[in-house]
Amino acid sequence: MAEKINCAVLGLGRLGWLHAANLAERVAGVNLLAVADVVAERAADFAAQYAVPLHTADIDAVIEHPDVEAVVIVTPTTTHAALIQKAIAARKAIFVEKPITLSLDEARTIDQLVQQANAYCQVGFMRRYDPAYYAAAEKIRRGDIGKPLYFKAVSRDPQCPPEAYIRDSGRLFLDMSIHDFDIARFLMADEVVEVTAMGAVVKNAFLQTYADVDQALTFVRFANGATGDIEGSRNAGYGYDIRAEVVGTEGTIQVGALSQHALHIFNKRGATHDIFPGFIERFASAYVLELEDFIARLQRGDASPVTTDDGYKAVAIALAATRSFDEQRAVKLDYQPV
Amino acid sequence: MAEKINCAVLGLGRLGWLHAANLAERVAGVNLLAVADVVAERAADFAAQYAVPLHTADIDAVIEHPDVEAVVIVTPTTTHAALIQKAIAARKAIFVEKPITLSLDEARTIDQLVQQANAYCQVGFMRRYDPAYYAAAEKIRRGDIGKPLYFKAVSRDPQCPPEAYIRDSGRLFLDMSIHDFDIARFLMADEVVEVTAMGAVVKNAFLQTYADVDQALTFVRFANGATGDIEGSRNAGYGYDIRAEVVGTEGTIQVGALSQHALHIFNKRGATHDIFPGFIERFASAYVLELEDFIARLQRGDASPVTTDDGYKAVAIALAATRSFDEQRAVKLDYQPV
Amino acid sequence: MAEKINCAVLGLGRLGWLHAANLAERVAGVNLLAVADVVAERAADFAAQYAVPLHTADIDAVIEHPDVEAVVIVTPTTTHAALIQKAIAARKAIFVEKPITLSLDEARTIDQLVQQANAYCQVGFMRRYDPAYYAAAEKIRRGDIGKPLYFKAVSRDPQCPPEAYIRDSGRLFLDMSIHDFDIARFLMADEVVEVTAMGAVVKNAFLQTYADVDQALTFVRFANGATGDIEGSRNAGYGYDIRAEVVGTEGTIQVGALSQHALHIFNKRGATHDIFPGFIERFASAYVLELEDFIARLQRGDASPVTTDDGYKAVAIALAATRSFDEQRAVKLDYQPV
Amino acid sequence: MAEKINCAVLGLGRLGWLHAANLAERVAGVNLLAVADVVAERAADFAAQYAVPLHTADIDAVIEHPDVEAVVIVTPTTTHAALIQKAIAARKAIFVEKPITLSLDEARTIDQLVQQANAYCQVGFMRRYDPAYYAAAEKIRRGDIGKPLYFKAVSRDPQCPPEAYIRDSGRLFLDMSIHDFDIARFLMADEVVEVTAMGAVVKNAFLQTYADVDQALTFVRFANGATGDIEGSRNAGYGYDIRAEVVGTEGTIQVGALSQHALHIFNKRGATHDIFPGFIERFASAYVLELEDFIARLQRGDASPVTTDDGYKAVAIALAATRSFDEQRAVKLDYQPV
Repeated sequence: MAEKINCAVLGLGRLGWLHAANLAERVAGVNLLAVADVVAERAADFAAQYAVPLHTADIDAVIEHPDVEAVVIVTPTTTHAALIQKAIAARKAIFVEKPITLSLDEARTIDQLVQQANAYCQVGFMRRYDPAYYAAAEKIRRGDIGKPLYFKAVSRDPQCPPEAYIRDSGRLFLDMSIHDFDIARFLMADEVVEVTAMGAVVKNAFLQTYADVDQALTFVRFANGATGDIEGSRNAGYGYDIRAEVVGTEGTIQVGALSQHALHIFNKRGATHDIFPGFIERFASAYVLELEDFIARLQRGDASPVTTDDGYKAVAIALAATRSFDEQRAVKLDYQPV
Repeated sequence: MAEKINCAVLGLGRLGWLHAANLAERVAGVNLLAVADVVAERAADFAAQYAVPLHTADIDAVIEHPDVEAVVIVTPTTTHAALIQKAIAARKAIFVEKPITLSLDEARTIDQLVQQANAYCQVGFMRRYDPAYYAAAEKIRRGDIGKPLYFKAVSRDPQCPPEAYIRDSGRLFLDMSIHDFDIARFLMADEVVEVTAMGAVVKNAFLQTYADVDQALTFVRFANGATGDIEGSRNAGYGYDIRAEVVGTEGTIQVGALSQHALHIFNKRGATHDIFPGFIERFASAYVLELEDFIARLQRGDASPVTTDDGYKAVAIALAATRSFDEQRAVKLDYQPV
Repeated sequence: MAEKINCAVLGLGRLGWLHAANLAERVAGVNLLAVADVVAERAADFAAQYAVPLHTADIDAVIEHPDVEAVVIVTPTTTHAALIQKAIAARKAIFVEKPITLSLDEARTIDQLVQQANAYCQVGFMRRYDPAYYAAAEKIRRGDIGKPLYFKAVSRDPQCPPEAYIRDSGRLFLDMSIHDFDIARFLMADEVVEVTAMGAVVKNAFLQTYADVDQALTFVRFANGATGDIEGSRNAGYGYDIRAEVVGTEGTIQVGALSQHALHIFNKRGATHDIFPGFIERFASAYVLELEDFIARLQRGDASPVTTDDGYKAVAIALAATRSFDEQRAVKLDYQPV
Repeated sequence: MAEKINCAVLGLGRLGWLHAANLAERVAGVNLLAVADVVAERAADFAAQYAVPLHTADIDAVIEHPDVEAVVIVTPTTTHAALIQKAIAARKAIFVEKPITLSLDEARTIDQLVQQANAYCQVGFMRRYDPAYYAAAEKIRRGDIGKPLYFKAVSRDPQCPPEAYIRDSGRLFLDMSIHDFDIARFLMADEVVEVTAMGAVVKNAFLQTYADVDQALTFVRFANGATGDIEGSRNAGYGYDIRAEVVGTEGTIQVGALSQHALHIFNKRGATHDIFPGFIERFASAYVLELEDFIARLQRGDASPVTTDDGYKAVAIALAATRSFDEQRAVKLDYQPV
């Protein structure tokens, strides 16, 4: 039995709270030692509810606390770079939510720091841990569909986030399609070398103020010649709709289902089944599994499976797509800082 | 009981033979009077097998035959314009396969001639008659998904046609995506005003000789602000895969299934079901239904439901997509001759 | 090209009308020469609408008409035996709806007469012609699921027929489960040797007057040791629900789908798709295909694929199930007249 | 934050090991204090792997250990009654695997003891905790399908257990169909009042030695007049296949899916998807959820949701079905000891 890892969660927003609750109740091998949030009361509430020894509004103090071995960073994206740097300096293991940063320079810098310090830093692309995506990657690796030729993804949110969120989100390609850019690299086991991005505001007029869109399409080219397309939408009033497909020389593999349970009702109005309402429900197990793997790797001394290089490349693709959309032309990627 | 329509089929290639056989055996209200093919023996074979009174290699003679009331044109696309003109002159009703022509000028000319002569000319976009597409259009019309926001289509052929076919096909956007361009107009009840087309050769290297692709993606904008994407592929080794989706403000509607029968086998290797091998099987009923409607409209004196204007617009979108792909830029449509 | 078969339809109820319309419009190789119904006006209406040369209320006259080569008997079941006998005497080919008779004695007699006269008599078990059932039978024959071990069937009608129909229907096992008894023999390629039938009135109280049920279950044993169960229900308010499954040593095969089209809508209330409303829609193609095969076999001189022996055995199983239900015990079949 | 419950697991067979691992790693609010197994080494192995403070071969000592508040009994069924009695005497909360006993007398006695002592005893019918079954029950309760009319269940194991297991299993109806008898009561919210059971050995000849079957069917009648059927099979070579359906006056609800992931592969051989290999995979989350509920109820002081009365009734139905099969007649239930 390996020693338990003493862990702290920084940031208790919706997702931070979920991560902290998973660490408190559902992840083996971990001791949730501290939670921190700039809203002190929120940290206190969580600590009381889940019996966490330490809670504070002083995030830096938690990073530097001598008993804390690992930090889970779920603060706003603009704070990621500074917190990661502090955690590296304090020699803590790091789990950081996506995107690692909003700028390519910062992402590059972080990646270099992590590599120089030989630090452990895992980026929260949880879709890689979804059992269906994971099994798809395995089947593709072992050749079940032959050589991959085309990648296709759909990500649709049930509604557009509020204006306050959109303002700082970095726009749809960085905020939303970044998951698919990462999954494209993961499933195709190849690098994206060119993107052509298109989009429109088809429903939420206020987005025009922020040069954002609610319906986007990115055409991608991979280094080995394969291509692909990625749809991102804020307009799926019917539910949370996430799909991916890889067409290969010997077959195609599809990931994704709208149905939350293996449960169907048939009546005079037709057939009905529940639809996943949002990402929390759709990726419930993925959120647990990524933290289980984080803790287990720390216990075993293994390297991070989702590196800051992965985080950097996803940001690079997302920013190239944003530029492609703005300049209405194909944009090549060289994975250098802007 | 309406009088039977005396009909002739011009061209007995794979699809012409199917149309003629459907008229001989499965379509009510019609009398298949004549079949014509430049290969006289093929016409003779068909006539013998299906007891057709007249068979010939002289296509013009059939058009002018006084007893023939309607002609079904399934000859090579390059011959369509001339045959339609002859049929108009001979005052015959016309059913013509898609695309009506390979050039926009010809398509425009045909459309004008048909309108001036007040002739009946129905274009063979059979997908509109597929029961699932038809029901989808009805549901969209009556508001089941609210206002349409996004159109999405996938058309994948099991393999690339041979080089001889590709040479004269007009390239993928005209040969293959044209079905989806028509269905986009049909389901969205709106006009395409701009296209951005991308593509690559990911499997069949010989296509590069013809500046063609085997994997294409067209982003489309509609007059009312909606957008959409259309994938065309020659690489679906697993079967014939045709899907469409319209996302609206109140829901999404999906058309398409890979399963040929309501039949599943489960064994140690997993679950298996038959996949449609090709368009003949997938659209078997649509091919009958479009001819049934053709005959019934002639009997009732109704107008054509799939007009030469529809045919012209589909060609215009396809050629704009081809130009967009060649010039790597968005291309606007004004539906004027090039 | 084989000579067309001159055919007459006897009985123009709902199903008779469908058969006659299929023969008039959708079945190749046939000339619908006459329609007969005891309601003269109904025959006249059909003849006018479909341009049938002869129409009459005199059913016997049609059977004896020298130009009629084949008769399709869709009259009430109680008249089948007499009409078949007359048709045999007049040396006509026969297609007869299921059940061939309501009594085992009559069924046995008919089967013997047909065999003695070497007459052609095909029973209308149309499910055998449904493409999914047909493909299932083929896959089972070629060993895709190994040796069959268990048969399972569900047949659910959207509602209970009216009292007038129930009165003469012979009760649920004979009226409704007979289709599954036939399909059990067809898919298992084996004989039913024992039945145990159970049931209840769970919704339609008036059935108790007729000792009938609206929810039934028959457990069956086959000669080779396999077993099975067959549910029959009048209570599927949600649609027409027909399923079958054969479990074999190497896998299981399932036939059946509620979805009428490959069409799905997803909205805030969940996912919806159309459900088959009734047998006419579900078995539309099977009704055409059984008559196409009937005509083609007459043209080629082939034997009947669904014999009066099949018809007799299905009646025998149905009556044994009825007795089993009445006497609350297992009933063995010896396929001898009661 | 409620105090953690000190818990012990008794019996570390396949399922006991799973329960203990879930308590050690996946269930909140619990402190796994002790594990016991008659094979001392097995308990030692588990304790070492999961850092459990106490491990022993002395099961009684664990029950009596003053720090242990709750025991999870996963020992052989024949030992359940005695262990439950000891746990009641020691005033411990109890979770016990199904079936609670093999005899009706014992089940009745246990139920009476639990009620007299006002003890907490929860029976491990984990299917009630499967999210799909749970959601089905909720939908039925709130009237989504109207009044329930018919219950239908299929439970198929991938293979027959070995002879050593069969010998002490109590035969199929008690060992296997008991899950469906419980779910029938749970989903129908009604009591079973009569059973008629049938069955056969269709594949595993050795079962005849034990008067057991590998293919069973039980017809059930409910107190309110509804009926139902339950298939149990040991012959599903293709995977673990569990389904349930309730037909109501306003619609039908179906639970069950063979697909383990939302993942499909399509290739030249057809479509394939993974099938659940066994109950461990199918009910992975249900096994966690039932223990989470067990612990949470102890923390809150709530009553058991799956009582010894439920356990007794399921045994009563199973034994009635066994008798019905043996005596080839319908057997009524009065829920009195035999």
